[in-house]
Amino acid sequence: MAKAITKRSENYSQWYNDIVKVADLAEYSQVRGCMVIKPYGYAIWEKIKDQLDKMFKETEHVNAYFPLFIPKSFFNREAQHVEGFAKECAVVTHYRLKVDDESKKIVVDDDAKLEEELIVRPTSETIIWDSYKNWIQSYRDLPILVNQWANVVRWEMRTRLFLRTAEFLWQEGHTAHATKEEAMEEAMKMINVYRTFAEEWMALPVYSGHKTENERFAGAINTYSIEAMMQDGKALQAGTSHFLGQNFSKAFDVKFLNKEGKLEYVWATSWGVSTRLIGALIMAHSDDNGLVLPPKLAPLHVVIVPVYRKPEQLEEITKTVNEKILPGLREKGITVKYDDDDKYKPGYKFNEYEVKGVPVRLTIGIRDIENGRVEVVRRDTLEKNFYPLDNIADTVEKLLNDIQNGIFKKAKDFRDSHTHKVSNFDEFKEVVNNGGFALAYWDGTTETELKIKEETKATIRVIPFDIDQNKTKGKKDVYSGKDAKYKVIFAKAY
Amino acid sequence: MAKAITKRSENYSQWYNDIVKVADLAEYSQVRGCMVIKPYGYAIWEKIKDQLDKMFKETEHVNAYFPLFIPKSFFNREAQHVEGFAKECAVVTHYRLKVDDESKKIVVDDDAKLEEELIVRPTSETIIWDSYKNWIQSYRDLPILVNQWANVVRWEMRTRLFLRTAEFLWQEGHTAHATKEEAMEEAMKMINVYRTFAEEWMALPVYSGHKTENERFAGAINTYSIEAMMQDGKALQAGTSHFLGQNFSKAFDVKFLNKEGKLEYVWATSWGVSTRLIGALIMAHSDDNGLVLPPKLAPLHVVIVPVYRKPEQLEEITKTVNEKILPGLREKGITVKYDDDDKYKPGYKFNEYEVKGVPVRLTIGIRDIENGRVEVVRRDTLEKNFYPLDNIADTVEKLLNDIQNGIFKKAKDFRDSHTHKVSNFDEFKEVVNNGGFALAYWDGTTETELKIKEETKATIRVIPFDIDQNKTKGKKDVYSGKDAKYKVIFAKAY
Repeated sequence: MAKAITKRSENYSQWYNDIVKVADLAEYSQVRGCMVIKPYGYAIWEKIKDQLDKMFKETEHVNAYFPLFIPKSFFNREAQHVEGFAKECAVVTHYRLKVDDESKKIVVDDDAKLEEELIVRPTSETIIWDSYKNWIQSYRDLPILVNQWANVVRWEMRTRLFLRTAEFLWQEGHTAHATKEEAMEEAMKMINVYRTFAEEWMALPVYSGHKTENERFAGAINTYSIEAMMQDGKALQAGTSHFLGQNFSKAFDVKFLNKEGKLEYVWATSWGVSTRLIGALIMAHSDDNGLVLPPKLAPLHVVIVPVYRKPEQLEEITKTVNEKILPGLREKGITVKYDDDDKYKPGYKFNEYEVKGVPVRLTIGIRDIENGRVEVVRRDTLEKNFYPLDNIADTVEKLLNDIQNGIFKKAKDFRDSHTHKVSNFDEFKEVVNNGGFALAYWDGTTETELKIKEETKATIRVIPFDIDQNKTKGKKDVYSGKDAKYKVIFAKAY
Repeated sequence: MAKAITKRSENYSQWYNDIVKVADLAEYSQVRGCMVIKPYGYAIWEKIKDQLDKMFKETEHVNAYFPLFIPKSFFNREAQHVEGFAKECAVVTHYRLKVDDESKKIVVDDDAKLEEELIVRPTSETIIWDSYKNWIQSYRDLPILVNQWANVVRWEMRTRLFLRTAEFLWQEGHTAHATKEEAMEEAMKMINVYRTFAEEWMALPVYSGHKTENERFAGAINTYSIEAMMQDGKALQAGTSHFLGQNFSKAFDVKFLNKEGKLEYVWATSWGVSTRLIGALIMAHSDDNGLVLPPKLAPLHVVIVPVYRKPEQLEEITKTVNEKILPGLREKGITVKYDDDDKYKPGYKFNEYEVKGVPVRLTIGIRDIENGRVEVVRRDTLEKNFYPLDNIADTVEKLLNDIQNGIFKKAKDFRDSHTHKVSNFDEFKEVVNNGGFALAYWDGTTETELKIKEETKATIRVIPFDIDQNKTKGKKDVYSGKDAKYKVIFAKAY
């Protein structure tokens, strides 16, 4: 029997939870808001991680590792960071347990209280810039192009698997530069790396651009973001890159001797993406039958299911699979599983791989072998076709490519058809309330931005890079009616 | 000028600290006992991780991720685990910070106190077995072969970079099986994976065997270990694998329906290695000139340093390097850096790569090109030779192989010549005090083991697998004089 998946049209939020569950991606643990990433979910994260890591290294970054704990006092160093940053953090106050004499149970040892509390990192700018102070003396030590793969903790009150959990996995790049220009270029380079990754690997079309002052990272001069549209028309922020100016170098007193022999403060960036990307993948591509994955990030590309009645039939099928199918696929680097487990019937298996989003399924029986063909089902469209056994590897390779492009196109068509230019506030409300992105003129004030948010829950997702803001001249703000400064994307967001 | 490295003969411990520093591997952070793993140190960890991960996957394990935090009450579930496990843990008691009205500083919000304290994982058996309870119903769900790459925290009072830090990185495998035999086999399989990795990749000869009851992991029925000898003759435990019996499945009530339809408790193993391995690498192979790395784990295999006076000479050298050296090396998967940075002199570079343990250095000048040769220096022996430019890739490949084998042999010869059979307690003391492993007969009692430890600080490292314990009949314990039960390896240890 198929496991129950709520339809998107019935309850989108429940549909999402169902997909995470039936595809066996993650679950909550006994610790409030903390998730267990199950093997199949983690395998997707590994694919994401491997590719991003490669892209970071190709852009000359190296990995390092900084402490999990940050002294409380560090958070007082950078004023904006203090003010703007969410205070929901896990606080370590003691460093020892003991066995209670009476109850014989493990209790916290009150004698082992820390002098200064330690905060479990919600992000690592402070501890990293405290280290960079020792790493940087001269312009010869710059740039520092470091990335860290790590777990971070933000004590979220309302959690959702992958999208918002108390602990999550991420990468955080932290770079140090001799000049403002170089740091700005780095921040821009990395948002473009994220954009490329989202579009080419996740098959996820994104708008990239500046965040407004109100939506910036605490401590940043400029925040760039990529924003994707989910199937309910809401936006999901999929990655951010920050130009931090000299805020952290000043807070941690990190100076360098420039080529002219003068002391200057260092320029900084930081940038990150997290396990949230798995949530984005699910919500962008999956359907009422289960997970749909872009082949480039699918842990398993192809499953082969034999259909037979008698053991000797299975034997013949296995021989054909081993000789005519597996070698060719593996040679092309295609990940393939031949599922000849006889504990389960083919129908059960079909469902299992469908809910897990394996991009291509081959079904093969005795009749197929006689006819020199194999049944091929693609997960994204559920289309079935017979193809010749000869050249099956080429066929599958092409199909995987088609699926990768197909789901990107589908997501892009969906997004484009749900992105509307709006010329007045009624239109605006209709668009964002019905699920969609509103392209609207904005007067550039935080006041207007906040009023719109209050009335509609929609926020400015980005001031897009690819809109020529000079053309806003003469236009009026969609809400205030004042002179427009920017044309921006508004939407409700995750 | 060469950076100062204390000689091993003068102060071994200081020599170790100096190597970590000059090779730029790691440093302490402002957080007590927590280290920053710097890019070069982390690159070694990445090589270790990649290879182990491959070996785990080849033995059919998958990765997953479990929460950082463990509810305090979980530690009370498994009695031996409670009693035996070190209580030095980081304890989270609050989940929010706030800005103090008066001081305007960030303080802990007293209103945000957790009902139950959370412990930052020192190891994850408890939280994982609490999850496995939901994963396992029937024999069809077994085995579960899961590994996790994670950070863990043990509040060590006396820390040393890589060897013993409050936070460290590791992998922990946690497997669940239907039968005792299968779990025992798994625990043995994994200690053998570690042994293979240590010997073939780290070039580190190890003794593998059982731990004594006294040295076992808290909650294990049996602990297997690999033990390596450092250059001061002390032992370093490099990896452990535990057969946990049904201790954790009983503590967390994890049962399965077997093929006969009966409920049984699940059988378990766990196994792990950590960033401590980097400490082992350093202490086993390095010399008074700096780090020595086995080529298989070196982030950079080969560096090429040009020697020239005039820019046009550099141009010609660069042309030769690009055409005749780099392509061949890269084709063989050899990692190579051509260091033509003109900010530093060749002598400075020679020293830099020597302290960092780059296995092979090529030096090339105009005269060399004229003579169709290149100077090749191997880091392990510091031997210099000229080799023809033709076939240089083959030459280097062979050399890297020779170095890998050479440092293994050197470490093995050292270990073997510092491992002594001892027949009385005076000999025993001489061996362990002068730095070495003592092969001795033991009566099998914890009493004797502890007395020896008290008098000499030496502990039983392993009861080796490859010693036929039947041959102990008629032999007497080296300390108590009672009938011997085992022939074991004693040593002082890190």
